Amino acid sequence: MNKRIYTAGLVVIGDEILSGRTHDKNIAQVASWLQVQNIRLAEVRVVPDVIDKIVEAVNALRADNDYLFTTGGIGPTHDDITVDAVAKALGVEVIIHPEARAILERYYADKGGLNEGRLRMARVPEGGELIPNRMSGAPGIRIGNLHLMAGVPHITAGMLDALTGTLEGGDPLLSETVGGFIPESEVAVTLRDVEKAHENCQIGSYPFFREGKVGSNFVVRSTDRAALDACMAALCDGLEQQGFAFTHGGI
Amino acid sequence: MNKRIYTAGLVVIGDEILSGRTHDKNIAQVASWLQVQNIRLAEVRVVPDVIDKIVEAVNALRADNDYLFTTGGIGPTHDDITVDAVAKALGVEVIIHPEARAILERYYADKGGLNEGRLRMARVPEGGELIPNRMSGAPGIRIGNLHLMAGVPHITAGMLDALTGTLEGGDPLLSETVGGFIPESEVAVTLRDVEKAHENCQIGSYPFFREGKVGSNFVVRSTDRAALDACMAALCDGLEQQGFAFTHGGI
Repeated sequence: MNKRIYTAGLVVIGDEILSGRTHDKNIAQVASWLQVQNIRLAEVRVVPDVIDKIVEAVNALRADNDYLFTTGGIGPTHDDITVDAVAKALGVEVIIHPEARAILERYYADKGGLNEGRLRMARVPEGGELIPNRMSGAPGIRIGNLHLMAGVPHITAGMLDALTGTLEGGDPLLSETVGGFIPESEVAVTLRDVEKAHENCQIGSYPFFREGKVGSNFVVRSTDRAALDACMAALCDGLEQQGFAFTHGGI
Repeated sequence: MNKRIYTAGLVVIGDEILSGRTHDKNIAQVASWLQVQNIRLAEVRVVPDVIDKIVEAVNALRADNDYLFTTGGIGPTHDDITVDAVAKALGVEVIIHPEARAILERYYADKGGLNEGRLRMARVPEGGELIPNRMSGAPGIRIGNLHLMAGVPHITAGMLDALTGTLEGGDPLLSETVGGFIPESEVAVTLRDVEKAHENCQIGSYPFFREGKVGSNFVVRSTDRAALDACMAALCDGLEQQGFAFTHGGI
């Protein structure tokens, strides 16, 4: 049976994110991609290159969600331990995947051939299938509802592209936005009361500071078109009654 | 007694990060700031605007670390529930902080005065002190080793600035970098063996693609200067033996 809502967890793996050396771009790109698949990103954990920390995060988020994604730690070096951690979390062995090995052999044929480090990238938790990587040799790995992807954002983007349309999603989450030079602190009660009066709708308030003035965009989200429209109409009424001008679609 | 290593956890709160609408900038800025305080960011969790999810993340990360930081959810609207969640996690009441109320009264004196939404920003878990906010009215909150900060990155930056030098840190984590047009997959064994031979040192490998060529920067980290220098010397020897050119400081 088709569920109404599907959720995913994301584990971002890498000391370089936690040290501040690398600015993560995968959270935003995975989040945006999941929206299009009608899957909600429910939680993200950023963990260091430490087996037990990865195992703990993977097990917690896969228990709570329909899908799990990881980014990082699938390269050729000693600090790339995602495959080992996921195998441990699932209680399976790590094997050399014959197709991954063949892909890497072809990819490195004119680059000095396979070596111990490069062969690490053919290792998968037993039962895993490959996620194509058009950018560089090493594939991602899909095992059940887990998806292990690269850390380098443009390689991850290619892997997400390869997964597009392959995961079952729920009802689309619809959204409408209005915005204006409205301080959110002047309409907080309106936002709360309108949200409370409309079931299955959430109102998000996103303040900004622009052209020397404060303003906000208000986003109403729902899987129910009629509920969304009614909630948005009530919100606009409320803003009007307080004398605020606003623009549909946000500013 | 001064500990060798202090760690922190970070909870990033907000549906807008999980929906992909807003690209988080606080993980990188908190991570970089903590490095300078000689505190290691050990884990980050990004959670939605849901009380129980925030409580769970706050309790897990404060149990595991010396310090906890949160960003987001301390504004005036109905979806700003960080204070309530942290009070619940700590088992204390939410009170109106008299100094916060006075700050907000002054700040809004020429902007229509306090109202219900604005007064929300004076609420703190009982026992909390204020973290100054020079950018806008609403202060951050420090309660024990917990620090509740804004979601808007430039406001968070001001709050971090106000906290600079107030937290006890451990031994500084030293680092040295070498880099070159070296495919990490060709030196993976060298990296692993050198790291294994040098206790208290970690080697991170950060590949890149530039000017049509692949390369890597290798970062050696340690709190022990002598160990770091020995490890770096061994790494450079290893790279040289493989015939690679590299630049100190990275490229």
